[in-house]
Amino acid sequence: MRILITSGGTTENIDQVRGITNFATGSLGKLIAERFLLANHEVILLAGRGALLPKPHPQLTVLTITDVADLLAATTKWTPQADIFIHSMAVSDYTPVYMTDFDTVAASSNLQEFLAKSNTEDKIASQSDYQVLFLKKTPKVITSIKRHNPNIILFGFKLLVDVSKEHLISVARSALTQNQADYVLANDLTEITATMHHGLLISQNPKDAIIEAYTKLDIADLIVRKSEETYDQHHTRHNR
Amino acid sequence: MRILITSGGTTENIDQVRGITNFATGSLGKLIAERFLLANHEVILLAGRGALLPKPHPQLTVLTITDVADLLAATTKWTPQADIFIHSMAVSDYTPVYMTDFDTVAASSNLQEFLAKSNTEDKIASQSDYQVLFLKKTPKVITSIKRHNPNIILFGFKLLVDVSKEHLISVARSALTQNQADYVLANDLTEITATMHHGLLISQNPKDAIIEAYTKLDIADLIVRKSEETYDQHHTRHNR
Repeated sequence: MRILITSGGTTENIDQVRGITNFATGSLGKLIAERFLLANHEVILLAGRGALLPKPHPQLTVLTITDVADLLAATTKWTPQADIFIHSMAVSDYTPVYMTDFDTVAASSNLQEFLAKSNTEDKIASQSDYQVLFLKKTPKVITSIKRHNPNIILFGFKLLVDVSKEHLISVARSALTQNQADYVLANDLTEITATMHHGLLISQNPKDAIIEAYTKLDIADLIVRKSEETYDQHHTRHNR
Repeated sequence: MRILITSGGTTENIDQVRGITNFATGSLGKLIAERFLLANHEVILLAGRGALLPKPHPQLTVLTITDVADLLAATTKWTPQADIFIHSMAVSDYTPVYMTDFDTVAASSNLQEFLAKSNTEDKIASQSDYQVLFLKKTPKVITSIKRHNPNIILFGFKLLVDVSKEHLISVARSALTQNQADYVLANDLTEITATMHHGLLISQNPKDAIIEAYTKLDIADLIVRKSEETYDQHHTRHNR
């Protein structure tokens, strides 16, 4: 199988010297890539700046992604050519539109004007005591995946912080439907440490039990196993 | 001599999953540290998250810095104990105060109210099409250095983007006075590539010629040489 994996975090530039970064080491994506390689699959890894990477391998292609625009271009290109899509990247929800000083914003009678502006300077001046940054929602990359390839097997990820298991499952189920994902790996930042990573694998099929894993390695192996099973099922069905 | 070097970039958290990062690889700070170690000096390196680091060395101490608050604490502690301070870190000018959706801000009759708020959620919700982030100026770390140690020899850095040489020098001279620096290394992002790094070393003494360097290694060696010369001058003078 050919596996497309996203990993690490995206950065949306504010100007040429600073940006908004989603924190992610890329360690889970790296491990998932390594386990697929070990099982003899081909891996294309779309990795955020500074993400941990597997060692070079003849079946591995690594492409560096900076922002959501990069990620959209890469997934549009590679999704039609892949069998499995594993979207473990921490993707920026918002991207900067315009930054200016607080007094300018407070003096405006219509804040909508700032949504139509953009900074032309390479490095935004830093004189005023307070500044205001306007941001707009980025396009959701995951919702376009099945459009580019209806047969791809899609694993989404949902990371929340300090919520109940019930709430985490409910949010993950909504994401599953919204994004037409086959699986969502739901996790809570408070249950991720250097040695532990508690994850819940939730299937599109409501009859499937939720599978729990407790380390990154367990999560990676679970994703490899479920990918292979689901791929085999699809292909058996198609060939009948 | 004992050399305190800051390197890499700081990150100011917006919430637990994202933050504003100043871009910096830490490669120049690493090289400066290595050249001082080679000249038999002791180095304390305050390095931003993900900054490139020298190999371990008996005369080298590395401390990791996340945000400006960390940096202030570390410089307050170490500045009185150092002879030379080299501030090559890309430090965040602003830190997040409060983030909320655009409609809430547009509906407010007094934007000042948002400067007194703070987000209590661990991960700020991402439903609205536009959001607004209010930021406040961070304390300038470099202005406090001579207060903590009037005898320290202070090297500031000034990075601008795509400006004339005259403008760069004029901004660097202002920074020199404002921060009571002994030297400022002025550079322009458009003149920094993988192989080249054009820098201008500007001295507090207006009679000193501006010294130009064209690679990171040249800049590092120039800083080592000027540190040793200036330290010797101070100590000769004191002992007369």
